[in-house]
Amino acid sequence: MDERDVTILKAIADLGTGSPEKLSDETDIPVSTIHYRLNNLREEGVIENDLYDIDLEKAGLGVTVLVEVLADYSDSYEEFGEKLLAVEGVTQAYFAMGETDFILVARLPDSDAVERLISDFEAIDGVERTNSTFVISSLRDTDNPLESYSLETLVEELADE
Amino acid sequence: MDERDVTILKAIADLGTGSPEKLSDETDIPVSTIHYRLNNLREEGVIENDLYDIDLEKAGLGVTVLVEVLADYSDSYEEFGEKLLAVEGVTQAYFAMGETDFILVARLPDSDAVERLISDFEAIDGVERTNSTFVISSLRDTDNPLESYSLETLVEELADE
Amino acid sequence: MDERDVTILKAIADLGTGSPEKLSDETDIPVSTIHYRLNNLREEGVIENDLYDIDLEKAGLGVTVLVEVLADYSDSYEEFGEKLLAVEGVTQAYFAMGETDFILVARLPDSDAVERLISDFEAIDGVERTNSTFVISSLRDTDNPLESYSLETLVEELADE
Amino acid sequence: MDERDVTILKAIADLGTGSPEKLSDETDIPVSTIHYRLNNLREEGVIENDLYDIDLEKAGLGVTVLVEVLADYSDSYEEFGEKLLAVEGVTQAYFAMGETDFILVARLPDSDAVERLISDFEAIDGVERTNSTFVISSLRDTDNPLESYSLETLVEELADE
Amino acid sequence: MDERDVTILKAIADLGTGSPEKLSDETDIPVSTIHYRLNNLREEGVIENDLYDIDLEKAGLGVTVLVEVLADYSDSYEEFGEKLLAVEGVTQAYFAMGETDFILVARLPDSDAVERLISDFEAIDGVERTNSTFVISSLRDTDNPLESYSLETLVEELADE
Amino acid sequence: MDERDVTILKAIADLGTGSPEKLSDETDIPVSTIHYRLNNLREEGVIENDLYDIDLEKAGLGVTVLVEVLADYSDSYEEFGEKLLAVEGVTQAYFAMGETDFILVARLPDSDAVERLISDFEAIDGVERTNSTFVISSLRDTDNPLESYSLETLVEELADE
Amino acid sequence: MDERDVTILKAIADLGTGSPEKLSDETDIPVSTIHYRLNNLREEGVIENDLYDIDLEKAGLGVTVLVEVLADYSDSYEEFGEKLLAVEGVTQAYFAMGETDFILVARLPDSDAVERLISDFEAIDGVERTNSTFVISSLRDTDNPLESYSLETLVEELADE
Amino acid sequence: MDERDVTILKAIADLGTGSPEKLSDETDIPVSTIHYRLNNLREEGVIENDLYDIDLEKAGLGVTVLVEVLADYSDSYEEFGEKLLAVEGVTQAYFAMGETDFILVARLPDSDAVERLISDFEAIDGVERTNSTFVISSLRDTDNPLESYSLETLVEELADE
Repeated sequence: MDERDVTILKAIADLGTGSPEKLSDETDIPVSTIHYRLNNLREEGVIENDLYDIDLEKAGLGVTVLVEVLADYSDSYEEFGEKLLAVEGVTQAYFAMGETDFILVARLPDSDAVERLISDFEAIDGVERTNSTFVISSLRDTDNPLESYSLETLVEELADE
Repeated sequence: MDERDVTILKAIADLGTGSPEKLSDETDIPVSTIHYRLNNLREEGVIENDLYDIDLEKAGLGVTVLVEVLADYSDSYEEFGEKLLAVEGVTQAYFAMGETDFILVARLPDSDAVERLISDFEAIDGVERTNSTFVISSLRDTDNPLESYSLETLVEELADE
Repeated sequence: MDERDVTILKAIADLGTGSPEKLSDETDIPVSTIHYRLNNLREEGVIENDLYDIDLEKAGLGVTVLVEVLADYSDSYEEFGEKLLAVEGVTQAYFAMGETDFILVARLPDSDAVERLISDFEAIDGVERTNSTFVISSLRDTDNPLESYSLETLVEELADE
Repeated sequence: MDERDVTILKAIADLGTGSPEKLSDETDIPVSTIHYRLNNLREEGVIENDLYDIDLEKAGLGVTVLVEVLADYSDSYEEFGEKLLAVEGVTQAYFAMGETDFILVARLPDSDAVERLISDFEAIDGVERTNSTFVISSLRDTDNPLESYSLETLVEELADE
Repeated sequence: MDERDVTILKAIADLGTGSPEKLSDETDIPVSTIHYRLNNLREEGVIENDLYDIDLEKAGLGVTVLVEVLADYSDSYEEFGEKLLAVEGVTQAYFAMGETDFILVARLPDSDAVERLISDFEAIDGVERTNSTFVISSLRDTDNPLESYSLETLVEELADE
Repeated sequence: MDERDVTILKAIADLGTGSPEKLSDETDIPVSTIHYRLNNLREEGVIENDLYDIDLEKAGLGVTVLVEVLADYSDSYEEFGEKLLAVEGVTQAYFAMGETDFILVARLPDSDAVERLISDFEAIDGVERTNSTFVISSLRDTDNPLESYSLETLVEELADE
Repeated sequence: MDERDVTILKAIADLGTGSPEKLSDETDIPVSTIHYRLNNLREEGVIENDLYDIDLEKAGLGVTVLVEVLADYSDSYEEFGEKLLAVEGVTQAYFAMGETDFILVARLPDSDAVERLISDFEAIDGVERTNSTFVISSLRDTDNPLESYSLETLVEELADE
Repeated sequence: MDERDVTILKAIADLGTGSPEKLSDETDIPVSTIHYRLNNLREEGVIENDLYDIDLEKAGLGVTVLVEVLADYSDSYEEFGEKLLAVEGVTQAYFAMGETDFILVARLPDSDAVERLISDFEAIDGVERTNSTFVISSLRDTDNPLESYSLETLVEELADE
């Protein structure tokens, strides 16, 4: 991948679309180039399907880290959470019951980036302690939770009769 | 949402496509109906964008639970992990360093489903202990990790020079 | 249940009586209405017996949460405990040996109320950390501890010879 | 309190009634005696109100112990829970999320009874570990959870519009 | 035991002697009375042997509690330890490796005294947290550690060749 | 100290007496020698007072170790405890509430003896896990718990009025 | 580094020598080549000094992992430890007091090797649980502990009078 | 060992050389004396091989302690780490993921030095808590990590093809 590929993938993520025209508007890359690049990314397996789901390993974000954050904050947890979400790489953030205040998932390019991630968290005012865990292997990372259910269960649980 | 809506959403998740033709092949629902239904789901905000990302809250999977699993298994962790992934609702599964063997994220329709989830895990041979945590509020649940990075960082980290 | 039912049930709890006359004095609801309402609540199983024990599930307080509170307080533990007891829904509160200062049980209308409960605790000056646990199922919740003993044991332990 | 007092209090707990006639049927103690005894128990403060709520301290069950139980059981948690509930003194039992399987509250006549309680639990097949905590002081032990709410909140949460 | 018995036992502990003359000097109780009282205490088993070892259960100090103390102190641990030792009932105090700063053993007259003990500790400036454990049963509480060794081991370990 | 000194100190501990005649009967060491040795041990500070309390540091048992034992035993805790007490050096043993089954204190001649102690425990059938802590400094190790109380408190708590 | 460089470095580690003649005997690489290679490795900083200390980062073993091992073994801890030491990459292994049986340090070529390391440990009979921690940064990794002392302290502590 | 031996060993550690000439320059001890002393140290096994690896037990640093440090520091972790490294005896220091900030290994002359070590850490501004563990036995303490790998693995992992 070169800078243009990355720019296109980023635009897909931000705009929530795979339309070459919209992506061209956003990135100033000609529509035909976008077509060509998307085809290549699909062939290399970086783009996995029609929904433009990304193979994180192939895209270069192969390291996953879980981070528990204990914090002492005076504003609401939503406002404090915003500060945590501003750290690059944080893809999931939960405010949970139990001993830990926040539980985060981050995707990083390599294990050297872990040091940057931890520093970023500890620089946030109110963060008392972080406890991070290195993921040895991601067994599943569903882009769409419906995948993990059978149709029968989904109909029973989600459909109004 | 009725059964047809759920069937279409499930097909999108399984096939990784939003193409009404492909969805019609899979579901035996006429293409025109699919068009019509998708438009409605978009208007209600269940479908969020061109990439068919789902608003889990609106789709009826509003409860998130984190589950740590301690296991005693003789096969490889990949094989054992398959058993955990077979439990409905498990959308993420990590094999991690640290005291816990597996860390899972599950999306459920309501808090009553928690009991079913825990029972399913404890019925798996080799699961010694589960430790689950109720998520009070999901602050972020990115469908695409690239969203959480600035373009500058992504280019620097992911693009070949 | 409508507002009148709830008002009557609340008066029973506060006054510690099931006498329609006393309840009428407290609530300004006519005695005959109270009679009629109590009968209905009994038939629906909300009121379980002559002692006006409540079926919490049926009354709409079906969610139970345990909360451990670690606190840093300068007044006595009784005074500090008063602040914890002022949080709505706290039905039991123990000052215990061991690592945690206070252990509380709360009954809530639904899982959304958990967020309110935790916020209420964290807003109390001196609360350093809360650790809450979601009860999947209440196996017993005795209104009267003597129930859990055999008559033989009770006589032996409680009766003066 | 003598054996008759205890017998009457136990019958109240089991039958869920304060009616002297029903209590006399159950206990073979004459109705007039029951009247007389109940009056005395009320005057001593053992019986607290019209609903026959008991002052546990005065009734002689002044020691409270919390017990966490980790178990390894092959039957359902409800069936296993039954065995825990059979231990005398267990007044609350919760099957909860988190590391511990069951969390119990027990009321005991004195601190010597703790040893009996722990032995009873450890004699149950499948109980792997118990972790008990001595309650120094019970700050609240509501017989009726509605007490802990304001009428406004109750109406809002429990009443149908 | 009456006040005189207790006074004599206390003098034995403080002076480290069983000599009636010295005890009389300290307590102003006549020597003959001391002789008489000591004989009685021996017969009742409160005094166990020629070395005036005390049977704590019989003397009325039958409750044992272990207390871990986490502290934040600026003086040396010896100086801080002095404050902990000033709490009545603390019979052993260790400054140890590991997570806890101090581990204490206390002997108390009854379980109500636990509340006083914990309050005393928490009133000490610098005590951050106490974690106390109720001893169900003391299996051994040697007055003289040499008892727990065989003569062979003692000679080998303690005697100079 | 030579073998004779150690033999005498051991006899004092076992017999619970300081009487040279009784010690001579037990040890076959002439009474006059015992007199002479006891005087020397007193002068060196090994024997601290009339009650023959021992200065453990000077006697050569200067290392203290705390050991938590988690066990899985089918006999009663008293019977199982006997096995733990048979390990040389164990001077205190408590069966306690909380996560750990037994908490022991041991006095050892030096830090090399720690390895022997742990091996002895782990060789006991039913011991699942030991968790030992090295005591850096013993701040107090009272031979007589009454020392730690004021006379006033003792009279109030222990004396019958 | 190519295969010859690695072979020479390995021989230095195994033989405990930097003598080109001995290294040549062991590796069948000509003495002159060894001279040449050692010079290059020194210039690149892989070999740090006359004592052939290795810069692990430059040598390609830049990842450090700490592993706690809980084990259930029937042989002696030394024999069991041998099995742990047989895992490639384990450079330090301690049998320690406290909750964990063994604490190990491993040096690995990259973060992918962590998966292999954990699998190797979990394949050992008797290993019940491993808890591994990823080292973000090694602040010091002394080849010679004397470095960390001042000469004054060393003389005082290690020199005979 | 006398002061000269210790001085020579210290110079070896500091200079990273075994060359008698360089050691003589540093220590002002004549070259011939250094030759003679080094031979003796080799014969006694203090110096283990041509690389001047030290047998710590024989050199008098036989006690190993692991220390976890939790800290609250405003400067970077490298700067804070420098303060920890200034404590004598610290031979390894890791900044790690997980709950603990720093994990250190120290080598000490005897168990009395533990007290000095802990005091030194607790005197450092920003150190909130230390948790130290006494190593009963060092199973391995490799001077050169390459030793722990087979040649095959090393070539595969470290050599460029």
